[in-house]
Amino acid sequence: MSFSARPRSMFVQNSWYVFGWSHEVAEPKGLLGRVIIGQPIVVWRDGEGVLHAMEDRCPHRHAPMSRGKVHGDTIRCMYHGMTFSTRGECVDMPLVQPAPDCRLRTYPVTERDDWIWVWTGEPGGEAAIEVPRAIGINAPGRPMMASQIEYDAHYQLLHDNLCDLSHVDFVHRESLKRATGADWAETAPRITHRDRGLRFERWFEEAELPGKPELKVDTWIEIDFTFPGIFVMQGERHAAGTAAACNRQRPLGIEPLMRNFEQQAVTPVGANRTAYFYATGLSGNTSETDAHVTRRMAVVNAAFEEDRQMIEAQQQIWNLTSADHTKHFLPQDKGPFLMRKLVDKLLKAERG
Amino acid sequence: MSFSARPRSMFVQNSWYVFGWSHEVAEPKGLLGRVIIGQPIVVWRDGEGVLHAMEDRCPHRHAPMSRGKVHGDTIRCMYHGMTFSTRGECVDMPLVQPAPDCRLRTYPVTERDDWIWVWTGEPGGEAAIEVPRAIGINAPGRPMMASQIEYDAHYQLLHDNLCDLSHVDFVHRESLKRATGADWAETAPRITHRDRGLRFERWFEEAELPGKPELKVDTWIEIDFTFPGIFVMQGERHAAGTAAACNRQRPLGIEPLMRNFEQQAVTPVGANRTAYFYATGLSGNTSETDAHVTRRMAVVNAAFEEDRQMIEAQQQIWNLTSADHTKHFLPQDKGPFLMRKLVDKLLKAERG
Amino acid sequence: MSFSARPRSMFVQNSWYVFGWSHEVAEPKGLLGRVIIGQPIVVWRDGEGVLHAMEDRCPHRHAPMSRGKVHGDTIRCMYHGMTFSTRGECVDMPLVQPAPDCRLRTYPVTERDDWIWVWTGEPGGEAAIEVPRAIGINAPGRPMMASQIEYDAHYQLLHDNLCDLSHVDFVHRESLKRATGADWAETAPRITHRDRGLRFERWFEEAELPGKPELKVDTWIEIDFTFPGIFVMQGERHAAGTAAACNRQRPLGIEPLMRNFEQQAVTPVGANRTAYFYATGLSGNTSETDAHVTRRMAVVNAAFEEDRQMIEAQQQIWNLTSADHTKHFLPQDKGPFLMRKLVDKLLKAERG
Repeated sequence: MSFSARPRSMFVQNSWYVFGWSHEVAEPKGLLGRVIIGQPIVVWRDGEGVLHAMEDRCPHRHAPMSRGKVHGDTIRCMYHGMTFSTRGECVDMPLVQPAPDCRLRTYPVTERDDWIWVWTGEPGGEAAIEVPRAIGINAPGRPMMASQIEYDAHYQLLHDNLCDLSHVDFVHRESLKRATGADWAETAPRITHRDRGLRFERWFEEAELPGKPELKVDTWIEIDFTFPGIFVMQGERHAAGTAAACNRQRPLGIEPLMRNFEQQAVTPVGANRTAYFYATGLSGNTSETDAHVTRRMAVVNAAFEEDRQMIEAQQQIWNLTSADHTKHFLPQDKGPFLMRKLVDKLLKAERG
Repeated sequence: MSFSARPRSMFVQNSWYVFGWSHEVAEPKGLLGRVIIGQPIVVWRDGEGVLHAMEDRCPHRHAPMSRGKVHGDTIRCMYHGMTFSTRGECVDMPLVQPAPDCRLRTYPVTERDDWIWVWTGEPGGEAAIEVPRAIGINAPGRPMMASQIEYDAHYQLLHDNLCDLSHVDFVHRESLKRATGADWAETAPRITHRDRGLRFERWFEEAELPGKPELKVDTWIEIDFTFPGIFVMQGERHAAGTAAACNRQRPLGIEPLMRNFEQQAVTPVGANRTAYFYATGLSGNTSETDAHVTRRMAVVNAAFEEDRQMIEAQQQIWNLTSADHTKHFLPQDKGPFLMRKLVDKLLKAERG
Repeated sequence: MSFSARPRSMFVQNSWYVFGWSHEVAEPKGLLGRVIIGQPIVVWRDGEGVLHAMEDRCPHRHAPMSRGKVHGDTIRCMYHGMTFSTRGECVDMPLVQPAPDCRLRTYPVTERDDWIWVWTGEPGGEAAIEVPRAIGINAPGRPMMASQIEYDAHYQLLHDNLCDLSHVDFVHRESLKRATGADWAETAPRITHRDRGLRFERWFEEAELPGKPELKVDTWIEIDFTFPGIFVMQGERHAAGTAAACNRQRPLGIEPLMRNFEQQAVTPVGANRTAYFYATGLSGNTSETDAHVTRRMAVVNAAFEEDRQMIEAQQQIWNLTSADHTKHFLPQDKGPFLMRKLVDKLLKAERG
C-alpha cells in the first residue's frame, strides 16, 4: 500500500461542493463570487430570494458577473451591461437585440443543512448523486456557531487530517485533546465504507473531563466523512460503564449526558488553496448552552489555527520534495488511505 | 470577427512609449529607472538638464544604472564605478583605460506635451514614426492635474477599456456618468481610422448636469486613441440645440460654454503589469477654474480606481480561462476590436 | 574570459554550510528548522545539549520535524507522534512497533567558531573536507557582534560582492568607506589560491581616519574567502610608514594600533534566496572596546542594507536579461571570476 506521492493537480468535477454558508448570501439580490475547483462561479439570489449559480465570467469580455447587480430575476454585468436570465440566457444588451448564442453556463445549486451546494459536473449528472447529509446549524435547542478559513494547501492534506484524528493528541494537545479528555492516538476507530465516503466509530472509556476530576465519562464518537470533504461528527457523553454495557457498539436508545455536533466542509479553490467551512454545537442537560457553545467555538477556532499552521508547513515541505520520495504507512493512515483511493477512483472514472 | 482569445505575451518594439511625466525627472542630474515592455530603462538629465535614456543595466555586472549618479554629462554606476557618456560609451572605469566595446544601449528620448517618450525599437526607426500628439498640462488658462497608477493586468485590457466608453454607464455610474450627465451605452460613437490609431466622435444631446436641473447642454466628445495607448479627449459643452444646428457634425467655429481635456497613456511594464499616466483639465467661462479642476480630478481618481478593480478582476478571470473560450462580440466592441487588429498587425510586421 | 551569463540553478552538495549561529539553538531541547540549498533541515539539541541535524520531513506524511518536540535524546513529530533517535531511526510510533525501514536522513553537524555547520553531501564525504576556519565571536578581549539577514538574490551575486571590495567606494561611500578612510577601487588586492578558496591581501597607505585628521595610518587587510561563502577578514591599523617598512608584505611581528575582525557566511536557501550571517569586532589599545564595537556594528548593518538593496536590484535586472547578454570583464573581477570558476568546477565534479 502506498500514498500517491504527490497530490493530484486535477479535481473531481462530478460532485456537489459546498460553495459557502447560506447566510453568506442572505438577502434577496445578494451576490457572492468564488473560485472553486479552479472555476469562477457566482451564486446569487433573485428578487424573490431564490438561489442561482452561474459561471462568474460574462461571455462578452470575461468580466466577473459577481461585480454585477441583480434586477428582479436577472443579473447584469456591471462592466458593459449584458443582462442574463436565471437560465443563463442573455436577455438584454446595450444597442442591439440579445443574441441567442450569448449564454452563461449555469450550475445546479441547492441549499441544505445551511450550506449552499453547487454541482460542478456534467449537466444532468446531479440527479444521480445525492447532496451529502450534514446537520444544519439552526435546529432548535441545538445551536451551532459557524466560521470559515482558507488554507494554502492541497485539499487532500485536509482530507488526510480529518480522516485520521490521532493528530489530536499532538497538534491539539492544548486545545481539543484537553477539552475531550481522550487519548486519540492510542486506539483506532472502526472504519466502514459508505457511499462515496467512510464512517468512523469509536468509544473513549473512563475519560476525565477538564476541571471535573470527580466525573468519569464514556464518550461515543461517530463521524461520517463523505466526498468531497464533508465531515459530520456526533459525540455523546455517557456515564462511565456505558461502553461496556453496549459491548462497545453504538449506544442505541440510551440518552447521553450531552451531545456535541461538528459540521465541516473542505472545498478546493485551486491547486494548493482550499476553503474550509465549519460549525460546532452541542445539546444536553445544561442550563447555559449558548455560553457553552461560545466557549467550545473558541477551542475549535484555536484548534483549526493549529491545523492550518501544521498543514501549511507540511505543504511547504511537499513543495520541496520529489514525487518519488517514500512515505511510511501506519495503521492510523487507513482512513486517509481509503479516502485517497476513493478520490483516485472518482478521478479515473471521469478521465475515462 | 473574433477577439484573439488571450492577450499577446509580446510587445511591439517599434514605438514611442510614454516613460513618465516630465516632472518625474524634474531637476538636472535627476534619474528615473523603470521597466517598460519588459526592458529596464533609465532616463536621466545631465548637468544642463538635457534628457537621456539608456539601458538600465551596467555592461559590467548588470547592476541598475538608475541607482547611479550623474556627474556633468556622464552617468556613473554606483556598484563599481563604471562611467558612461550620453552616447553610452564607457569613459571611465576603475584601474584601467575604458575599453571601446564596453557600451550601454541608448534609446532615443524626447519630451512632448509634458511626457517623456522613449523609442524602444530599431535604432534609426524613430525618425519614421511621429511621437503621438497629446495636449500638455501646463498651457496658460487651461490647467491640468496629473497622476499615475499601475494595474495588475495586460495592457490590452486597458486598451479595450479606453476604446469602448459604454462602460461609463456601468463601472462609473456614480462617478463619471453622474458628472457628465450622459448615457454612454445607448449610442455608439462614429469611429474613423487615423495613423496608428482611431478617432471617436459623438454628441450627447439635451443632457442635464448634476445640481443644475434648469440647464440642458449638448456635449461634443472627440477622442484620439493612438498606439501604444495614448488617449486624448476633448469635450465641449454647448447650449442645447447646438448638435442639431451642426447636423451632428463637429461644432466648428462655435465657442463652447466649457471645454475639458483628458490626456492619458498606457505603457506596458510586463506581461500582466501596466502603467497608466493620466491628467485632467478644463477651461471656460468659470471664475474658479482651479477649484473646478481639483473637484474633477477627485472624480477621475475615483473612476480610475473603479476601472482598476474591474480590470484586475477581469484579468483574474482570464487567468482561469482556457485560450479557446468564446467571447461574444458586440457593436460597442468595434473600437477595441480595431485596436487589437492594429496591435496584431504591428506585431506581425515586427515578427516578419 | 567570461562570466557564466546566468547563475546556476543547482547547488554544490558536497560541502559544509553554515546553518546558523550557535546561539540560535542555544538551549538543550532547542529546535531550528531552515531550508538550505533547497533542502528542509532541522537542527536540534538533545537533553544533554548535543547538536543533531536531520531531514526536516517526517517519513510518515512529510510534516516538518522542526514543529516537533525533543524528549531526552529523541525528537518527536508533533503531527502524529512518530519519534526518532539521534541516528534517525524511528523508536516509537503510535499503535504499532516501530518499523526498521522508517528512517529520517541525518546530516553530519558540528559547531565551530560559533556557527552550526551542516554537511549536505554524500554520507562519509564530510571527513575529506575540512570545516572552513573562521574566528569565533566570543574570544576574550575581542568581542564581536553578530546578526543575519536574507537576500532575494542568487548566492553567486553575494560571492561576487564579497570577492571584489572595490564596490566599497561606491555602494558604501557614506558608511564603510568613510569608516575605513581607504580608497578601495584605486588599487587591487593580491589574490592567491587556497584550498577551495581565495586569499586577498592589500595595504592602504597614509589613510586619514574620520574625525582624526592629525592621524595617518597604514592599514593591512587580509581576507580568506572559502567555498561555500565563508568570508573572514582581519584588518590591522599601523603607524604610517609600516607598509613601506614591510616592503608591502604582511606585517609579521609588528603589533598594530588596532585590529578588526569580520566573520561572514553566505548560505543559499533556494534559487534566488540567500541567507547571510555576519559578525564584526575589534581589539586594540582602546579603553572602550564595547562601545566601539557597537558603533562599528551600526556601520556594518547600514552597509549590508546598502548591499541588499543593490544586489536585489541587480537580481531584478538579471531576471529581465537573456542568458547570452554580454558582461564586460574588469581587472577587479578577478576575485569573483576565480570564485565562479571554482563553483563551476565543484558542480561539474558532482555531476560527474
